[in-house]
Amino acid sequence: MDAASTAVARPKGSVEVLSHLAAEDIVEINNIIVARMQSPVAVIPALADHLINAGGKRLRPLLTVASARLAGARDDACLKLAAAVEFIHTATLLHDDVVDSSELRRGKVAAHLIWGAPSSVLVGDFLFAKAFELMVEAGSLRALDILARASGVISEGEVLQLTRAHDLNLSQDVYLQIISAKTAELFAAAAEAGAVSAGAPDEQIQAMRDYALNLGLAFQLADDALDYGGATADLGKNAGDDFREGKATLPLLLAIERTGAAEQGFWERTIGRREQTDADFTRACELIRKSGALESTLDLAADFADKAKTALSPMTSNSWRTALEDLADFAVSRRA
Amino acid sequence: MDAASTAVARPKGSVEVLSHLAAEDIVEINNIIVARMQSPVAVIPALADHLINAGGKRLRPLLTVASARLAGARDDACLKLAAAVEFIHTATLLHDDVVDSSELRRGKVAAHLIWGAPSSVLVGDFLFAKAFELMVEAGSLRALDILARASGVISEGEVLQLTRAHDLNLSQDVYLQIISAKTAELFAAAAEAGAVSAGAPDEQIQAMRDYALNLGLAFQLADDALDYGGATADLGKNAGDDFREGKATLPLLLAIERTGAAEQGFWERTIGRREQTDADFTRACELIRKSGALESTLDLAADFADKAKTALSPMTSNSWRTALEDLADFAVSRRA
Repeated sequence: MDAASTAVARPKGSVEVLSHLAAEDIVEINNIIVARMQSPVAVIPALADHLINAGGKRLRPLLTVASARLAGARDDACLKLAAAVEFIHTATLLHDDVVDSSELRRGKVAAHLIWGAPSSVLVGDFLFAKAFELMVEAGSLRALDILARASGVISEGEVLQLTRAHDLNLSQDVYLQIISAKTAELFAAAAEAGAVSAGAPDEQIQAMRDYALNLGLAFQLADDALDYGGATADLGKNAGDDFREGKATLPLLLAIERTGAAEQGFWERTIGRREQTDADFTRACELIRKSGALESTLDLAADFADKAKTALSPMTSNSWRTALEDLADFAVSRRA
Repeated sequence: MDAASTAVARPKGSVEVLSHLAAEDIVEINNIIVARMQSPVAVIPALADHLINAGGKRLRPLLTVASARLAGARDDACLKLAAAVEFIHTATLLHDDVVDSSELRRGKVAAHLIWGAPSSVLVGDFLFAKAFELMVEAGSLRALDILARASGVISEGEVLQLTRAHDLNLSQDVYLQIISAKTAELFAAAAEAGAVSAGAPDEQIQAMRDYALNLGLAFQLADDALDYGGATADLGKNAGDDFREGKATLPLLLAIERTGAAEQGFWERTIGRREQTDADFTRACELIRKSGALESTLDLAADFADKAKTALSPMTSNSWRTALEDLADFAVSRRA
């Protein structure tokens, strides 16, 4: 172990190996993204750029190219699909932030607070349309079908979450159904479409879908844990958003179940009726930690990450596969 | 002329001949629409149904099937495309009503006032995704491309309108650009995709696109005139919406130009700053009528309707073509 690696206590798993392998592809994808978000209506590229260049990890398009490359793709058919996937994701974020009245996104002021909710809704629609144009150019009806279906599932998941947002009695099953639809489905479709574009056999297409679906679940569970401080209980500046919005995520649902009647009043007030004081978040974090809800959430995330890695077994063993395995570890070990 | 036709002073032109010819197709399209808006998330079909079964004329899907049938289609490939076109249109209406904070749609309370703006945004996204699923099933990448591009153009037009909504100095060119994008483009794409699905030669595909683009412009201009009482100056109960929202439509823009400096203050207050009293709409209607702005708007609509009919010249002369010609006349003669 050299000095550099001991100095930085790097968590197990990383997205860097994958980003490095896909570096050339990502440059091309970014070029496509920038070219296709242009419009003579100036507010469209301005608003799109605010979000697209806010330093997101490009995880979903990375899954599309990694899946295509791992399945043996040598051409660039996957790049337009990858850009389309990022556009679908961005459109979803724009609409989500309007729906949730969120104030921050990727550490920046949410677009609807700068350009207004109407522009955010319409620019989301614009990007969604551009995604389908790109998919048409990619030329695979099967890949198009996969991403169109995923888009429908995402909106269904969002509506389901909206109607059950502050439900203290949400079951773990319905919670998993919601995050599967609103997060994991696009991960799955991104990877599946990549494998389809590479002309992979059905067994490999299914393997890439299974990998990414489980990876998406692991990521979302870890995200939900991070909002209460995560494994390190190190509350970042954006922690507490879910609590303040009264979102029934797994750490909260488990804590509510485990703290029982004694704390029922606290949860009903802060989540059910969303009547909160500044001290409430600290108390919620304490209850969540004491009840072991964070560990349970992260254990479940780790289970999904393991399933993701196992799903890769039909794929060739090469540096792409290793990078995807690393990404699964990263999903549960990251701190932000 | 029989008693029935003299008793009702029927305006020149009608949508009835077309609806009659396409009756069987419309039944099938409605079946597809109802089947595809289902979801286990109950609010989705409830909200979609509120708008879809509110008695819209199904003009756009009618254009798709009429175009396909006129181009000789004997199979049902056009029906899924037609349903997709209605879904795109419905998604656009749901988002529009949120964007404009409209209170009424098709004579009913707007969906966002019943289910909330968040659900309207997300159900719009759901219907948009379902539209693309249907297009994939229809199996034509070219038709998909046409409708994906149209969807992008529509959102661009909506954003352009949003940024120029209360601009008293909007030029007639920019106004036509806006209604071309937000209304006529989907008419054009609906007809074009129908002809493509029928395997029509390029000349006929272009003819159907040109017909429907001009028809869409005629419809929108007549709509904008109807909002100030239209040709009959008969103010329906929904007239005045554009004025109250301060929308710079052609009747208004022409009146502003023609009434000159004398009324500048009135227009700046009522449209520019949207400070209105109940009497202002009556005064606006008077100014619009006196300035001949309504006649000019309807003359322009009639010009586009004529262009629409002329565009049909490469098509076979049969009952479908006659019905489409009648529809063009209906566009400018209707009273609601």
